[in-house]
Amino acid sequence: MGEEEEVSNTQIIFNGYIDGFPTESAMTVKASTIKLKVPNGCNDAVLVKTLYLSCDPYMRSRMSKIDDNYIPIFTPGLPILGNGVAKVVDSSNPNYKKGELICGMFGWEEYCLVKSTDILLKIEHTDVPLSYYTGILGWAGISAYIGIYEISCPKKGESVFISAASGAVGQLVGQFAKLLGCYVVGSAGSKHKVDLLKNKFGFDDAFNYKEETDLNAALKRYFPEGIDVYFDNVGGEMLDVVLLNMNLNGRIIACGMISQYNLKEPQGVRNLFKVVAKQIRMQGFLASSYVHLFPKFLDFVIPLVREGKITYVEDIAQGLESAPAALIGLFSGRNLGKQLVCVASE
Amino acid sequence: MGEEEEVSNTQIIFNGYIDGFPTESAMTVKASTIKLKVPNGCNDAVLVKTLYLSCDPYMRSRMSKIDDNYIPIFTPGLPILGNGVAKVVDSSNPNYKKGELICGMFGWEEYCLVKSTDILLKIEHTDVPLSYYTGILGWAGISAYIGIYEISCPKKGESVFISAASGAVGQLVGQFAKLLGCYVVGSAGSKHKVDLLKNKFGFDDAFNYKEETDLNAALKRYFPEGIDVYFDNVGGEMLDVVLLNMNLNGRIIACGMISQYNLKEPQGVRNLFKVVAKQIRMQGFLASSYVHLFPKFLDFVIPLVREGKITYVEDIAQGLESAPAALIGLFSGRNLGKQLVCVASE
Repeated sequence: MGEEEEVSNTQIIFNGYIDGFPTESAMTVKASTIKLKVPNGCNDAVLVKTLYLSCDPYMRSRMSKIDDNYIPIFTPGLPILGNGVAKVVDSSNPNYKKGELICGMFGWEEYCLVKSTDILLKIEHTDVPLSYYTGILGWAGISAYIGIYEISCPKKGESVFISAASGAVGQLVGQFAKLLGCYVVGSAGSKHKVDLLKNKFGFDDAFNYKEETDLNAALKRYFPEGIDVYFDNVGGEMLDVVLLNMNLNGRIIACGMISQYNLKEPQGVRNLFKVVAKQIRMQGFLASSYVHLFPKFLDFVIPLVREGKITYVEDIAQGLESAPAALIGLFSGRNLGKQLVCVASE
Repeated sequence: MGEEEEVSNTQIIFNGYIDGFPTESAMTVKASTIKLKVPNGCNDAVLVKTLYLSCDPYMRSRMSKIDDNYIPIFTPGLPILGNGVAKVVDSSNPNYKKGELICGMFGWEEYCLVKSTDILLKIEHTDVPLSYYTGILGWAGISAYIGIYEISCPKKGESVFISAASGAVGQLVGQFAKLLGCYVVGSAGSKHKVDLLKNKFGFDDAFNYKEETDLNAALKRYFPEGIDVYFDNVGGEMLDVVLLNMNLNGRIIACGMISQYNLKEPQGVRNLFKVVAKQIRMQGFLASSYVHLFPKFLDFVIPLVREGKITYVEDIAQGLESAPAALIGLFSGRNLGKQLVCVASE
């Protein structure tokens, strides 16, 4: 196949702004074609073959027209954009050569022309699953790392609670906290997930929040001595009852609020006075602000992965056509572990 | 007058637990008597003459029976307790001598037997008004100091917003932030208070929140470039709209939430996702945890007071009988500046 030849290039197109709970109808699977060559005059670009794409809750906020959004909205008519792993097929950028594996932000399509190469990272270690670079070795991993090792710094014996605990970030947060000698409990939305937390990730305990009629009572049961660190992936009602159970000098890591992303109006959190009364520090963060820590993080986590000291569970949808359903499934908790899409093997 | 002689001792008695907005009927002015001598067998105690008593919003939470209250509830039938300035009349504690001036937690009565002397501080500097030890040189002062110099550390040119800005704490927060070269705006509940902020405390601007039909629009008007540091004394709706106007890496100092103390159920704060999206750090604190900083704080602030670089406005109610009304007045914003009660001149 010559490089000038056009090949088929399936794309997942963003149809337009949505409100409320997203459905697959927000996206269209479109047949297209592409030449496997960086166009003439397009300097410092790379053309890549997409291998793995990450499905992340934050992507929901790129689908709605919100004033003062913290992240650019997807462009209707163009492919969805997301983090992923890809292989360089052609390059006009001297830093990236054909055949190299990279992580970055790619269009949801089989082949993608990347004109802004500032945020690409070269993959150095390939003795771990490549898909890990969408999760444990990507933004999810560094999010867990920042929350535990940079922001909350739990001490041995402290109690750590994690919501959405079997997800891409939560499963790692719990394992990192266990490495530090903490008492770790997670909440998740199914029996299967709870089993994973207790039996695969080594959490001290876990519960299915959907089966608890009184979340406050549940937290008091699992944390009779209170919570020192809460890693919040969900916001809303869970955050509200956690506030009632925080210890003095507690830390809340505000990583995400998935329970709120599809609501027309967010739920009100009523127990914020506990922030004063318990001297709580609540810290929000965007992993993108910590990109400088990636080398340090990878040096830390890759040996743990190699030695089997950290486990990572992925939920891999096969084929780009399955990507819309995989993304939408995040919001009903259909995924078990880190949701990603395998677009192509190497 | 012999020390064994009984003297009259007016007391402000706490009648019992209340709900909702407090009224003076929560307290009773009671005529009583006391011997001006530490009783035999009462070791390490001091008997003091009360000079100044502080009226503070946090005292409201000592009037309701709340599960897991952060501070002990007042005892029905006994005097209200509060911070104040007093003079030692008799002492069985070798650390305190008759005639010495002290700050601490005293009963709301003319004379008070203090059995727990752990939290008393001796007053060393008397070339400043004694009443200041209930405010600028007391918990209000150190609260402002902690919020600015220990927690938020605003840089020159950063924008600082303060609610309840003419109050005991707010007026100092603004002046400290001005010393650091910040752009400082405060909100308050009357024209007179707004005038004070602009003309006496040197705020860059100020507004009457009661006259704003759209608080979000007001904040956008005063902070077209956003807010870097919010010193929150009120919580509730104001906190909610401030969240919409915070800048990336903003800091919220959660000092108090006076708008919520008299509500049966606190208002819900809906915009907490901004904590994630703007990487906000929200830090609650209790000044009592920073008591070790008092010497450092006084060394910092007393020269500023002496040199006239810091101004402090007090609202002094005369006589213990006026104390219930003074305390209740806090919750309708009747006070102009730091509310306190002068019980007796030295």
